[in-house]
Amino acid sequence: MRVVVYGVGHIGSLVAKYAIKKGFEVVGAIDTDPNKVGKDLGVLVGIEERLGIIVSSDAESVIKSSRPDIVIHATSSWLDEVLPQIMIPVRYGIDVVSTCETLSYPYYRYPHLAELLDVYARRYGATILGTGINPGFLLDTLPALLTLPHINIDRVIARRFVNAGSRRYSFQYKIGLGLRPEEFRDKLARRELTGHVGYAESVMLMASIMNVKLDSVEEGQEPVIAGSNEYLRTKYFEIRPGHVKGIRGYGVGYVGGREFIRIEFHAVVGSKDYEEIEVLGEPRIKWVSTGTPGDEGTVAVLLNLAPKVVELEPGLKTMADLVRASYSFKG
Amino acid sequence: MRVVVYGVGHIGSLVAKYAIKKGFEVVGAIDTDPNKVGKDLGVLVGIEERLGIIVSSDAESVIKSSRPDIVIHATSSWLDEVLPQIMIPVRYGIDVVSTCETLSYPYYRYPHLAELLDVYARRYGATILGTGINPGFLLDTLPALLTLPHINIDRVIARRFVNAGSRRYSFQYKIGLGLRPEEFRDKLARRELTGHVGYAESVMLMASIMNVKLDSVEEGQEPVIAGSNEYLRTKYFEIRPGHVKGIRGYGVGYVGGREFIRIEFHAVVGSKDYEEIEVLGEPRIKWVSTGTPGDEGTVAVLLNLAPKVVELEPGLKTMADLVRASYSFKG
Repeated sequence: MRVVVYGVGHIGSLVAKYAIKKGFEVVGAIDTDPNKVGKDLGVLVGIEERLGIIVSSDAESVIKSSRPDIVIHATSSWLDEVLPQIMIPVRYGIDVVSTCETLSYPYYRYPHLAELLDVYARRYGATILGTGINPGFLLDTLPALLTLPHINIDRVIARRFVNAGSRRYSFQYKIGLGLRPEEFRDKLARRELTGHVGYAESVMLMASIMNVKLDSVEEGQEPVIAGSNEYLRTKYFEIRPGHVKGIRGYGVGYVGGREFIRIEFHAVVGSKDYEEIEVLGEPRIKWVSTGTPGDEGTVAVLLNLAPKVVELEPGLKTMADLVRASYSFKG
Repeated sequence: MRVVVYGVGHIGSLVAKYAIKKGFEVVGAIDTDPNKVGKDLGVLVGIEERLGIIVSSDAESVIKSSRPDIVIHATSSWLDEVLPQIMIPVRYGIDVVSTCETLSYPYYRYPHLAELLDVYARRYGATILGTGINPGFLLDTLPALLTLPHINIDRVIARRFVNAGSRRYSFQYKIGLGLRPEEFRDKLARRELTGHVGYAESVMLMASIMNVKLDSVEEGQEPVIAGSNEYLRTKYFEIRPGHVKGIRGYGVGYVGGREFIRIEFHAVVGSKDYEEIEVLGEPRIKWVSTGTPGDEGTVAVLLNLAPKVVELEPGLKTMADLVRASYSFKG
């Protein structure tokens, strides 16, 4: 399968590395970073072998000349920013699978762009899917499937805990490690930091697989503060007492005035890595994991779904098009 | 949604009860048991209210007169036995969701019947799905989805443990509780007892979702024997030392001469109830549950999937048509 990697940041580099390992044919690489443009992809992503793929900032000519089966896109979290990037392969009828968090359920934050993009993709015969480990799998698709053996459901709760201290620099940066709490809140408000993006998307995606109409959705995140005697240090940041050692965020979906879906993401230095998904109802069942690596998980989801995406009908898709088994409200 | 219940045994009765609770319109009931024919379904399944649905042994006239959207079928484990039953609604273009274990992946044990039934269903515009908690969900569909965040996989292991002592009579009977080991083996060989049916089907179904071709599949089950000082008693059986207190069975799928999929089912008096699913590879992740009730689980799977089945294209389907996200070998 012929693949173009769009975005050669941390995730894009991992995509390239593992794609080659898994037998994909990587036929092009796109990035706008002047430090990357003109370099050989193999050298850049550290597989210590020239691939003959030169990173280019000219997306259109890469797509036109390499004619991939699919573009694996990993640049930014916001659909309005990545839209022009995604339109390029789509215009050539080429499918796209993207890490863009807000694309995992685009009808929530960008309903009009989503509608336009769906028509555009159908017009050119291309399929688009936004996915990854979170949003895309752990706090939405997987909990939705886990509701299947339930006769009745009161509430679904899915939580992910990660040790922020063992994550890459850009992750630690985006969750504000080492900042004073007020700095964190300022930077978050100004979008200088993003924290985690996709709480509401996960809630909406889960609801969409379950075919339930939510009355409303809310989301939020806040810093987790180091205690008065807690001195912490990661590979990249020093955290003093009273400073940010992580974030915790949530998304909630309401039905009939009651909390029906709750998802939480806790990324704190020193935390244990695990997920827990509990479906309360008839019966009540809880599943707990030994933890899921975030970056490798996202890359695996992208690469594993690439062959499925090319088999889907054209249009803007979500994970709800790939996983259709869940609890059902309709009788 | 209009439903006919085909088979008013333990599972069929639960289906009727919960279907009404969930707002399905139960419009007919079929059973051949002379003790059930002619009785009101509501009284029979213990909802203490006449439903005006009289159990009939004439499947064809029930289907013809009640014109359901779907038939929920729960009679036997073997496709060759239930085939004539399933053909009746299909001939009228009516969809069927069935607990028949060997129908959950019919291409394994009955490849020719499956091929015929698929053409037959398409010819009449009906959809057929075999599913349930096991096979259908815990040891096949769910583990397949759990492989999605893996870059590489060496092996998938899924195990289900149930306390046989808390299950219904017919379950305890079919796993041979209280028998001498040699009696158990005799009765199993003569199909007087079935133990669990569907080990190989689960292995094949999981492989089919993952789109991997297995070299071979094997399955087996054996009695678990009470220890020399172990005197056990369930609501229905007495178990003396040296006698059968449960079964353990397995299904294994091989790829390249190595065990790639292993599923196990342990149903033993006094066991803890839980499932564990481990995917070994890159990364290695294990999920453990607090246990899934078997009968209620199967009924929930049937009722939750009924609205999805009627939306599928005609033909003989499996859970692989509803869950299409998993690890992928193809690069």
